[in-house]
Amino acid sequence: MSQPEPTPIRRPRADQARQVADVLRHQIHDGTYDGGLPSEAELAAEFFVSRNTVREALSVLKNEGLIDRGTKVGTHVAARKFDHGLDALVGLKETFKDYGEVRNEVRAVLKLAAPPAVARKLALDPGTQVVYVERLRYLGDLPLSLDLTYLVPDIGEQVIGHDLETNDVFALIEQVSGQRLGGATFALEAVSADPHSAATLQVPDGSALLMAERLTSLDDGRPVDLEYIRMRGDRITMRGNLVRGTP
Amino acid sequence: MSQPEPTPIRRPRADQARQVADVLRHQIHDGTYDGGLPSEAELAAEFFVSRNTVREALSVLKNEGLIDRGTKVGTHVAARKFDHGLDALVGLKETFKDYGEVRNEVRAVLKLAAPPAVARKLALDPGTQVVYVERLRYLGDLPLSLDLTYLVPDIGEQVIGHDLETNDVFALIEQVSGQRLGGATFALEAVSADPHSAATLQVPDGSALLMAERLTSLDDGRPVDLEYIRMRGDRITMRGNLVRGTP
Repeated sequence: MSQPEPTPIRRPRADQARQVADVLRHQIHDGTYDGGLPSEAELAAEFFVSRNTVREALSVLKNEGLIDRGTKVGTHVAARKFDHGLDALVGLKETFKDYGEVRNEVRAVLKLAAPPAVARKLALDPGTQVVYVERLRYLGDLPLSLDLTYLVPDIGEQVIGHDLETNDVFALIEQVSGQRLGGATFALEAVSADPHSAATLQVPDGSALLMAERLTSLDDGRPVDLEYIRMRGDRITMRGNLVRGTP
Repeated sequence: MSQPEPTPIRRPRADQARQVADVLRHQIHDGTYDGGLPSEAELAAEFFVSRNTVREALSVLKNEGLIDRGTKVGTHVAARKFDHGLDALVGLKETFKDYGEVRNEVRAVLKLAAPPAVARKLALDPGTQVVYVERLRYLGDLPLSLDLTYLVPDIGEQVIGHDLETNDVFALIEQVSGQRLGGATFALEAVSADPHSAATLQVPDGSALLMAERLTSLDDGRPVDLEYIRMRGDRITMRGNLVRGTP
C-alpha cells in the first residue's frame, strides 16, 4: 500500500486537550509537578498547543480531582496516587510499607453460609460456613480500599483470632496455615461508586473505582481466600509488566 | 490473642446488598445468567438475605448498566463484558479474535513534535517528530476503547503506510521492524469519563473508564510505542494471575 500523508485536518480542541491531559496525568503521578505545575503559557509551549487547549486539559484533570487551580496560587497537585504492583501477590500493608502505615477498620467479622458462587470458587460445598471479613483500609488518614473477604473455614477461624486491624490477611493466612501462598487469579474492572460505597470510601457518588475480584490459593493449589476489593480510582494506580509470548 | 466471637451485629442492608452485588456481578460476567437472572425470592434463598436486600443489590447492578429489569420480563443481562488478558502483551484484535471483528476508526494520523514527557519515555530528544495515531476501536458495532498512540519516527512512518483500520499496531510494528515485540510496562487506573471522551465512547458523562498507559519495547529493549488507552468500564474486564514471590 502506498504511504498516505498524515491527516492535515485541524483537530477539535477537545481531542487535543485530552491528548495533553493524558501525558500530564502521568507526569503528575511521577511527581514531576510536586512543586506545582508550570504556567499555562509554559505548558502551551511544551505541548505545541494553544493556551485554550492547555486550559481545557487542566480542567479535565481538575474534574478528576488530580489538581487544584487558583488564580493567585497557580496550579497544584491535589491528590497523591499510590502504586500497587500487578506482578506479584502482595498485601496492601507490604505494598505501601514505604508510603506509611496501613490501618484496617474492621467493619464486620461473620460466619456465614457460603452462597453457591462463593462456595464453588473456594472449592467448598454450597452452604458451608465460611468466615467473612469486611475491612475499610486506610493509608494514614486516607481511605484507600474497601475489602470484602471470604475465607475457607479452617483457615478463616484461625485468622480472625489475630489482630485484623494492623495485619494483612495474606500474612495471617501464611502464619496460621504454615504454608506460603502460591498464587492468585484476578479480574480488574472500572465501576462507578454506588452511593453507599462512595460514602464509605469518602468520594463523591459515581466516582470511578478500580474493582478487583481476587481468588488466592496456598502453595499446594488449594483456594482459601476470595476477595472483592474496591479501590479509590483517584488514589491507586496498578502497575505491571507484560511480555510478548511466542508467536 | 484469644479468639473473639464473630461480630453478632445486625449489618446495614446496604452493606449486605453490596456483598450480594459483588458476587452476582461476576456470575453475570461468567455467563451464568445469560438466560436471565433468578427471581428475587430465589436469589434471597441463595444468599441467605431478605428480598429487600436482593432488590437493592440488583439496583446497584442496574445502575452500572449490567442488567435490565422489567416487571413482566424479569431481570436480564444488559451488557456483555469482554476479557482482556494481563499476562501477555497482545493487541486488541488478537485478544478478541474469538468474540468478533475488531475495527478501528482512525480519527487522526499526524506527525508532531514530541512533548518532553513523551520524548523521554520513547528515549528521543524533545521535539523529535513522532507519529501520532488516534483510533476508536470497535468490536462489531460496539465502541470498546479510544487509543492515543505515539510511535518513534522510523517505525511510525512505516506503520502509517499500512491499513490501520483492520490491523493491530503491534502486528504492524513487528511487520515493519522485522523484530518481535519484547515487553511493555503499563499503569492502569479508573477514571471518570470527561464529556468529550464519554460522547466518543458512547457512554454517559462520568462513566467509569479503565485507563491504561502502556510503553512497549522491541525485543532489543528499544521503546517504540507509547499508548494512552481508555476502555469502557462496562465492557472490559482485565484478567491475570499473580504469584507470590520469595519472602
